[in-house]
Amino acid sequence: MTPRGRRPAGSPDARAAILVAARAAFAREGYRASLRGVARDAGVDPALVHHYFPDREQLFVEAVISTAAGAPVALAQRAALVRTLPAQGVGAALVRLFVSLWDEMGADRFMAVVRAALENELIINPVRDFVVTAVLGPLTRRLSPDRPALRAQLVATQLIGLGIARWGARMGEIAALDAEGLAALVGPSIERYVLGDLP
Amino acid sequence: MTPRGRRPAGSPDARAAILVAARAAFAREGYRASLRGVARDAGVDPALVHHYFPDREQLFVEAVISTAAGAPVALAQRAALVRTLPAQGVGAALVRLFVSLWDEMGADRFMAVVRAALENELIINPVRDFVVTAVLGPLTRRLSPDRPALRAQLVATQLIGLGIARWGARMGEIAALDAEGLAALVGPSIERYVLGDLP
Repeated sequence: MTPRGRRPAGSPDARAAILVAARAAFAREGYRASLRGVARDAGVDPALVHHYFPDREQLFVEAVISTAAGAPVALAQRAALVRTLPAQGVGAALVRLFVSLWDEMGADRFMAVVRAALENELIINPVRDFVVTAVLGPLTRRLSPDRPALRAQLVATQLIGLGIARWGARMGEIAALDAEGLAALVGPSIERYVLGDLP
Repeated sequence: MTPRGRRPAGSPDARAAILVAARAAFAREGYRASLRGVARDAGVDPALVHHYFPDREQLFVEAVISTAAGAPVALAQRAALVRTLPAQGVGAALVRLFVSLWDEMGADRFMAVVRAALENELIINPVRDFVVTAVLGPLTRRLSPDRPALRAQLVATQLIGLGIARWGARMGEIAALDAEGLAALVGPSIERYVLGDLP
């Protein structure tokens, strides 16, 4: 409970206060931050957090990733799509989703998230947990019983590097290809990380 | 020629002045910056640049990468090693060299270079040119006549992402493995980028 008491549900700044509190909580506690604590810090009823943000992921995306990137994004929907990808062609499909998402959002957005994460130790933890634990982990667990956490992290290494080469370092060949071209080139590496026999 | 005239060869600050001028020149002009211009900006004879830094690479490494990383490094020797790798096991060998180099230099050094490059558009160009054009390009050109520039960039995406996952994001599984373990896991992806049939 804050000294100023709880904000009423209709308060125009309640939603903004939740985002500020959530950003701090994710930075402090990681992706599994207490939503009850977020409500308390924001001075609102816990039900209001759920009213504005039906699930943890939407709150995380808006509080951490969208804020860092400076724009509302369709990340949560894409993340849900990733989790349900079939095994067949999974590597190419992941590259296609990743490249087309950030291409659509504008080249600077990916780098804004990467810079925010690399410059701030408190942001890197929830971003990593979101990517590896919430998005890629469920996919690798469903498709491969063998070391799914390692597989999710291997996929992340290739996608992060691809993104930095395309939108940050602007490597000519990687930047000139479209999502389909990159999916054909990089997809097999990612497919092996998800489905292959690992040593 | 600077207004203060040329520094004598034995001047204790001549070497430091060359590094300062070189850092600015690489930032401004990229990896192929004029060494004659560096000498002029530093107020020294061009021969003195060659005296202190027998080749462009040593000057670049010390001026840009070592300064960013805050330590003198053996990067130039490793880069020479990369260029002469045999086709057999090239993917695993590249991962082994990359991981052991930066592990030895200390976890923070890799991220210092990455942060410097991502925060400063003027540093990213020479760093990218060094990695892709000077180190990986000669290797892929020697081993694969088909699209060597694209191959070098694909290798770079995987290594950069691996480095960020290990030393920046500290992904548990990637950070816990040693160079040999990562070489076995990631090597085949890189080998395909260097030697495989690309679509």
